[in-house]
Amino acid sequence: MSDAAAAPTGDVIRFRVRYAETDAMGVVHHSRYLPWLEMGRTELIRARGYPYSELEKRGVLMAVIEVQMRYRAPAAYDDPIRLETRLVEFGRVKLRFQYRIYHDTTDRLLAEGETLHAFIGRDGAPLRLASQFPDIWQRLQEIAGIPSSGGT
Amino acid sequence: MSDAAAAPTGDVIRFRVRYAETDAMGVVHHSRYLPWLEMGRTELIRARGYPYSELEKRGVLMAVIEVQMRYRAPAAYDDPIRLETRLVEFGRVKLRFQYRIYHDTTDRLLAEGETLHAFIGRDGAPLRLASQFPDIWQRLQEIAGIPSSGGT
Amino acid sequence: MSDAAAAPTGDVIRFRVRYAETDAMGVVHHSRYLPWLEMGRTELIRARGYPYSELEKRGVLMAVIEVQMRYRAPAAYDDPIRLETRLVEFGRVKLRFQYRIYHDTTDRLLAEGETLHAFIGRDGAPLRLASQFPDIWQRLQEIAGIPSSGGT
Amino acid sequence: MSDAAAAPTGDVIRFRVRYAETDAMGVVHHSRYLPWLEMGRTELIRARGYPYSELEKRGVLMAVIEVQMRYRAPAAYDDPIRLETRLVEFGRVKLRFQYRIYHDTTDRLLAEGETLHAFIGRDGAPLRLASQFPDIWQRLQEIAGIPSSGGT
Repeated sequence: MSDAAAAPTGDVIRFRVRYAETDAMGVVHHSRYLPWLEMGRTELIRARGYPYSELEKRGVLMAVIEVQMRYRAPAAYDDPIRLETRLVEFGRVKLRFQYRIYHDTTDRLLAEGETLHAFIGRDGAPLRLASQFPDIWQRLQEIAGIPSSGGT
Repeated sequence: MSDAAAAPTGDVIRFRVRYAETDAMGVVHHSRYLPWLEMGRTELIRARGYPYSELEKRGVLMAVIEVQMRYRAPAAYDDPIRLETRLVEFGRVKLRFQYRIYHDTTDRLLAEGETLHAFIGRDGAPLRLASQFPDIWQRLQEIAGIPSSGGT
Repeated sequence: MSDAAAAPTGDVIRFRVRYAETDAMGVVHHSRYLPWLEMGRTELIRARGYPYSELEKRGVLMAVIEVQMRYRAPAAYDDPIRLETRLVEFGRVKLRFQYRIYHDTTDRLLAEGETLHAFIGRDGAPLRLASQFPDIWQRLQEIAGIPSSGGT
Repeated sequence: MSDAAAAPTGDVIRFRVRYAETDAMGVVHHSRYLPWLEMGRTELIRARGYPYSELEKRGVLMAVIEVQMRYRAPAAYDDPIRLETRLVEFGRVKLRFQYRIYHDTTDRLLAEGETLHAFIGRDGAPLRLASQFPDIWQRLQEIAGIPSSGGT
């Protein structure tokens, strides 16, 4: 992604494992971590002052195009979870987040993940934020801690 | 529901319990039965020649406004499930389905349920099918096995 | 339920709607409210000093045997939710909770629900707490605000 | 994974998208593909004559330790889905599956994925199938189409 820049910004959320997130192995089902990552992204963006729900109202969606997860240790019902989310790449058409999930009292690393996203419109077509939504593009760059380069 | 009529029509679908549907008790989580009921409704309507996805394209949504479930016996991963769905009420603004869920090889009754639905538009406002979508109204009445009374 | 007594105790939790809880109607899928009710029960019991995870470790499970939901108004992604949970019946073999779900800033009632539970063991067989786990029975009665009547 | 061998075996399952699997973007939520992959593995193993539920009864669990997904095109409610599953690595402690998900009537590739698994016991500790469960190890090797090399 040639138009991406290192943009390490981080956020932390805490929550407990819901019973409905466990499976017959007695631990959290591996698919249930993905909505957690989504919560991490939501709160990171909100903390920077631009709720994702506002982006959606403007017609800017962030489609997930890649997910990678590595599961290190299981989580059980009612475990206190700490999720750290970082925005690590921020480009004209894509952005990338990294995640680390911990047991919040033992600090044991439970899982690590990464998601890659594309900006798309309501019709599913790719958006180029810099030219199509320059005010959002500028704002997100500020959120990512990157000086605006003027778009294209 | 004064405008409803008895409209017993039935359908059966079969499927297996997914691992992701189980919880730490080792059985299917009680919330996971609700998507099954939705599958039953979908297939009942499709079998009558009017896929629900077509209704949605026309702007006719069926919002769930009530759910009742009684859980009789647990279901486990990979269990073969048989779901019987009946449309039991069909009125101008609401319709009601009843469901019975069985273990398909033992015939043990696992759960019974009922859902009540309202027709709404994309904006969430109630629709009166008979006057606003008379062709759909007539078609759904045929599906329900009720002679059309002319609407409104 | 002749052995139950009115035991109104209440609790409130607040959280936001996750994106993964929405469906193609743009609102929270009706099945997704059930895990919320479970969170309400979990926090009500924890607030009284007896985490449900502790009950499970002792081999006392609370199986859901009935659910009733009435959906009043839709909830959308990122909406702030307030869930009020009350323990309304507490008997030797069953207990009943009632729930009211609100949009936390508008105070609009979104849904009401009720769940009925039975105490069962790891083998799925019903437990009679009063005789089989008298210490848990006594503790839960205190939680419910009911003076212990000595069990059996 | 030095003890793994190329073991291309394949299987195909077909199903429809459930309403509960969609999200507010109007398409299948990205987390919902993971239970599909699980169905693919389940049916691949069953087709070879060894249901995963049997493995679990013997105390042999297949924990997911890595997931990679690439999403190519969205899937909508009621879309007919075709999932192709291949067992591509089969070693003493790990196994790897690859998946391709298609729209079944247009043959459009919707997503590709890969999962890596470890054999673990009920206590979560790694198992070495070849020495601890030689009969299962031999049977799984036959399933994978690899001649048994004697284990350890």
